[in-house]
Amino acid sequence: MNAIAIPEQMRATVLLERQKLAVQSRPVPELDDDQVLIEVSSVGVCGSDVHFWHDGALGDWVVHEPLVLGHESAGRIVKTGASVPPDRVGQRVSIEPQRPDATSSESMSGRYNLDPRMRFYATPGVDGAFAQYVAIQAHFAWPIPDSISDDAAALLEPLSVAIATARKGNFTVGSRVLIAGAGPIGIITAQVARAYGAREIIVTDVSQGRRVRALEFGATRVIDPTAEDIGDLDLAADCFVDASGAPSAVISGIAAVRPGGVVVLVGMGPKEIPLPITVIQNRELIVTGVFRYTSTWPTAIALVEDGKVDLDALVTGHFGLDSVEAAFLSTHEPETLKSMVHPNAS
Amino acid sequence: MNAIAIPEQMRATVLLERQKLAVQSRPVPELDDDQVLIEVSSVGVCGSDVHFWHDGALGDWVVHEPLVLGHESAGRIVKTGASVPPDRVGQRVSIEPQRPDATSSESMSGRYNLDPRMRFYATPGVDGAFAQYVAIQAHFAWPIPDSISDDAAALLEPLSVAIATARKGNFTVGSRVLIAGAGPIGIITAQVARAYGAREIIVTDVSQGRRVRALEFGATRVIDPTAEDIGDLDLAADCFVDASGAPSAVISGIAAVRPGGVVVLVGMGPKEIPLPITVIQNRELIVTGVFRYTSTWPTAIALVEDGKVDLDALVTGHFGLDSVEAAFLSTHEPETLKSMVHPNAS
Amino acid sequence: MNAIAIPEQMRATVLLERQKLAVQSRPVPELDDDQVLIEVSSVGVCGSDVHFWHDGALGDWVVHEPLVLGHESAGRIVKTGASVPPDRVGQRVSIEPQRPDATSSESMSGRYNLDPRMRFYATPGVDGAFAQYVAIQAHFAWPIPDSISDDAAALLEPLSVAIATARKGNFTVGSRVLIAGAGPIGIITAQVARAYGAREIIVTDVSQGRRVRALEFGATRVIDPTAEDIGDLDLAADCFVDASGAPSAVISGIAAVRPGGVVVLVGMGPKEIPLPITVIQNRELIVTGVFRYTSTWPTAIALVEDGKVDLDALVTGHFGLDSVEAAFLSTHEPETLKSMVHPNAS
Amino acid sequence: MNAIAIPEQMRATVLLERQKLAVQSRPVPELDDDQVLIEVSSVGVCGSDVHFWHDGALGDWVVHEPLVLGHESAGRIVKTGASVPPDRVGQRVSIEPQRPDATSSESMSGRYNLDPRMRFYATPGVDGAFAQYVAIQAHFAWPIPDSISDDAAALLEPLSVAIATARKGNFTVGSRVLIAGAGPIGIITAQVARAYGAREIIVTDVSQGRRVRALEFGATRVIDPTAEDIGDLDLAADCFVDASGAPSAVISGIAAVRPGGVVVLVGMGPKEIPLPITVIQNRELIVTGVFRYTSTWPTAIALVEDGKVDLDALVTGHFGLDSVEAAFLSTHEPETLKSMVHPNAS
Repeated sequence: MNAIAIPEQMRATVLLERQKLAVQSRPVPELDDDQVLIEVSSVGVCGSDVHFWHDGALGDWVVHEPLVLGHESAGRIVKTGASVPPDRVGQRVSIEPQRPDATSSESMSGRYNLDPRMRFYATPGVDGAFAQYVAIQAHFAWPIPDSISDDAAALLEPLSVAIATARKGNFTVGSRVLIAGAGPIGIITAQVARAYGAREIIVTDVSQGRRVRALEFGATRVIDPTAEDIGDLDLAADCFVDASGAPSAVISGIAAVRPGGVVVLVGMGPKEIPLPITVIQNRELIVTGVFRYTSTWPTAIALVEDGKVDLDALVTGHFGLDSVEAAFLSTHEPETLKSMVHPNAS
Repeated sequence: MNAIAIPEQMRATVLLERQKLAVQSRPVPELDDDQVLIEVSSVGVCGSDVHFWHDGALGDWVVHEPLVLGHESAGRIVKTGASVPPDRVGQRVSIEPQRPDATSSESMSGRYNLDPRMRFYATPGVDGAFAQYVAIQAHFAWPIPDSISDDAAALLEPLSVAIATARKGNFTVGSRVLIAGAGPIGIITAQVARAYGAREIIVTDVSQGRRVRALEFGATRVIDPTAEDIGDLDLAADCFVDASGAPSAVISGIAAVRPGGVVVLVGMGPKEIPLPITVIQNRELIVTGVFRYTSTWPTAIALVEDGKVDLDALVTGHFGLDSVEAAFLSTHEPETLKSMVHPNAS
Repeated sequence: MNAIAIPEQMRATVLLERQKLAVQSRPVPELDDDQVLIEVSSVGVCGSDVHFWHDGALGDWVVHEPLVLGHESAGRIVKTGASVPPDRVGQRVSIEPQRPDATSSESMSGRYNLDPRMRFYATPGVDGAFAQYVAIQAHFAWPIPDSISDDAAALLEPLSVAIATARKGNFTVGSRVLIAGAGPIGIITAQVARAYGAREIIVTDVSQGRRVRALEFGATRVIDPTAEDIGDLDLAADCFVDASGAPSAVISGIAAVRPGGVVVLVGMGPKEIPLPITVIQNRELIVTGVFRYTSTWPTAIALVEDGKVDLDALVTGHFGLDSVEAAFLSTHEPETLKSMVHPNAS
Repeated sequence: MNAIAIPEQMRATVLLERQKLAVQSRPVPELDDDQVLIEVSSVGVCGSDVHFWHDGALGDWVVHEPLVLGHESAGRIVKTGASVPPDRVGQRVSIEPQRPDATSSESMSGRYNLDPRMRFYATPGVDGAFAQYVAIQAHFAWPIPDSISDDAAALLEPLSVAIATARKGNFTVGSRVLIAGAGPIGIITAQVARAYGAREIIVTDVSQGRRVRALEFGATRVIDPTAEDIGDLDLAADCFVDASGAPSAVISGIAAVRPGGVVVLVGMGPKEIPLPITVIQNRELIVTGVFRYTSTWPTAIALVEDGKVDLDALVTGHFGLDSVEAAFLSTHEPETLKSMVHPNAS
């Protein structure tokens, strides 16, 4: 097991500057004592990767130095740090791509995702997974069963976002959930809502193709927001999840929530959106956001292993390290739902 | 006890239309079986009363028919409905001015304030307390001890708003609370924050006079938002309470909350305010509002009786039913904190 | 609709004293303004009915006056009180058999099940449903769709107990739930656990027949507690539900809960049980009980209508008002799961 | 700063076996990279120390190897590990005496006190603070202001137990808290209850002297449980805290809690106590325990610094390392509330 050969150099696709990617040879990462080295098998392309590439920035983050993108990833452990049991070599794992400071007050309170000293894959200063090898703390390399494919293992990351959303949105038996946006997060959230027992899962999207797809993945009803005003439909949703980032969707979605209901903002859009304060007040809505996740991987693995969430069905394209730009561009095509990069595919 | 004489007619100050008040003679209210009749001793003037008078409207509510305003009120029970113990006659009481439908799903879940069939004092269709007598369900007429004055008994209503705010904002020992606006609600909320054990109570207001007053009522620090940018001060508040309704205060206040903290919107301002979505997301803030209150009177009575909140000190003016307009106008004077109307004062 | 003929007298099976039942002619109940009259179609036999009959008492309740038992019931509205919409006549309904005082502090806080002035069907002083007609407040007569049978409509009551258990036990996606006792409540709780997304549902029962049945209704594993010591199995359950009332089951079940987990005591057994205090402390377990339910019927209806819980399959016997004693005795037979009484069957 | 001289050997008082203590010379602890070395100034004697000494065991823990007791401690940083900022040398600190595994699922969820791999001071295998020097992870050495004495700094540990109790017991403005036992934990909990805004703080103790002391420290009422039956007094407490470990106190205390109230078991007594299951069920009480604490030190420091809790007033005796046995024996004297050991006092 421990005899897996590891080269000294590896290939990585690096964002050099705005809209400029290059495949480079880089040293394979050195391990800290508590880390493992993973030979990367599959990486999902996230909208945030595309934003970083296209704009050279995402929100307040700006790419000043070359950066390896990619944070939805899986692979196989090929080496263990000094304090990690060596028999983990060979394990197939899904990567939780965060490195919080475990001693911060946020981490000590169970909110390590909010740790101000967090080092997260594919954010300026921290390289991500569009590379042949990556390092991560051993407890963030989650072993996966054989029944979960490499692609699905990588996509446990966006599934974790949806699980964090379900927790904040109090999804439960009988819930009526409204989801704006039928992209990958919206589609996975619909599946998760069904798994949590939601009774009505209403998905809105301007694209008819996406609406059809939403129905295949668990939506009980789809709405074209250009044809109907969500706020007028008296939906009285228990929870509204914005997975679109579109201001109009956020505004009309909030108006569709019942008194005492919850609004979870997941999609990335403009920094400011005019929100209907009077509605939030008069209905005592709870408006919050999801910023990554904590302690979601065991739930994510269970959902996929038990067939309650299908991640493989989301995959619509496969690319190599040489084709990361093509993978990014593919996300703008209507038939694309999720594009995967395979750093070690020959 | 039951021998208290009750006239057939009473005086009430009625809002006939926008900016037009008149003292009228009206029949004393008939009682439902579960109600009590209260001879009103004191009524606080709320900003919403002034809004209704000035604009003929408040948010989505529009005054089409003559309306008696006033919902911060106290008095003495002078008559009991058929199913109420007659020995309640003579009790001094503070009025919780709501009439929810107890069988609605909201009421059954303990959120009767959100009952869609709520009938609340001084909203279109439901007369308020600028009158000599009012009726209320017996369990919403809360007996008060002799140590609480008539004025303070009336002001248990805004105190209830502040208690509801404290509950939603998780005020507790050690909390750092930021409050925008040093009007009556801001001042009472500062006192309540101190009673809940808050360690730092930071109040912002554009008026120096109000800032000075805030320090007298429990603020540990005051800030002039025209001189300092709240968002830049690294306050890391556990909770931000907006008691101003001012968009600039709301926006800068949200930026001053720590990751995982709470924003409670209490002040009434424009229907829409552009909110910093990225901040709400990246810090997973909880943004919510307070719409009246549930089950707050016992706590309110305890706080005043125990001297932890001083409501009498807020009172800056006294008026009769003939002078309600003067009472309304007084709220724009800088030295006014709380104006009281005494419907049965001779 | 309103033309349904109602007799003046009805038949009811009355517990006269310990172990002595008689079918009597009684006046059909008079309605309060907010009530409806229901022609009873189906009533489930609960263990508490059998206890009352056998012992003339249940816990602190003692039967001093003749009492009609039966509180799991459904039927058809045949008459409406003065303040109830008359078009409800003809509706098939499931009965939530409680009459709380809506003005108590418990009711106002959303815990009407804990109202000290509660009047509950089939407890001393309040007649139950082993009768041709019963009255209930209109909002506690829950309309049911045609797809739910009369028997299932009656059994929404024990399903409500299981839903209340799920809420207190935080059943959710991925939960490991341990249930002691495969009687009706244990079996329904297993089904509810599955609907809430529980991944492992472990049921213990001394009877092999019941264990087999548990597997048919959602248990993923069954254990014979006489053959294996639950506390030794390292189950690390997220929640332990006692639906047995057996002290040995309670004690070993608590030992099987993970740190921070929940224990929900549902079964009725001896008044006192020696509990492992050190385990509760060292693992900071939460030990609580379920006393009826609040706001569960909408969820219960949804679960049955959507086929997530099968109540009809629990029914193993049918009896008339003349055979209530036989129905009671049937509960001791191993093949019995749920016996139903049909007061209006000819 | 870094020039503080540290010897190679130190004195420590070691429990060799049951009831056998010896002062020994031991090597000063080596530091891990993330640790600091602390010259111990003050250590409180806890009941658990006395138990370990007297019985050679505490609950499931048995002392097989020599063990240094003492876990309520404070001192001054004299050396820093490789990854700790060296300017911490010289800081006065209070020690949070736990070493959880930060990567366990419990730690990651914010419940590091329940981490199964926890290494806690003064439990078998982990030496405590009756020694001249101890090591602890840097983030568990909490800096304290000059206004907090060495003794009070040490006693932030039992104060943390009381804060954890307040959090679990939902102490808040207006609470009625019943506390059994007026020993150090009971007395500190009474002070904490007052700081959290509790309105009624009822303390029971069999000793008149202790009852008098409780009144000095914040109790609003004291009861002699040998003279009155707590369960008969209709106290309807929001929370009952057992700080006695006495079965009779636990049983009668539970009977004194209102429906929906909370029971927090803090005191250490027999492994099993017969609890009134029917009361727990019919009132849906929440029964739980406190096992140490998480994230309490900042609150504890604030409470003492602000004068809301007085720890110095609890101290009734001072001892050196040579007199630890005397310190232990002192705890049985009625006038003793808290005995302190000063390892570096000459």
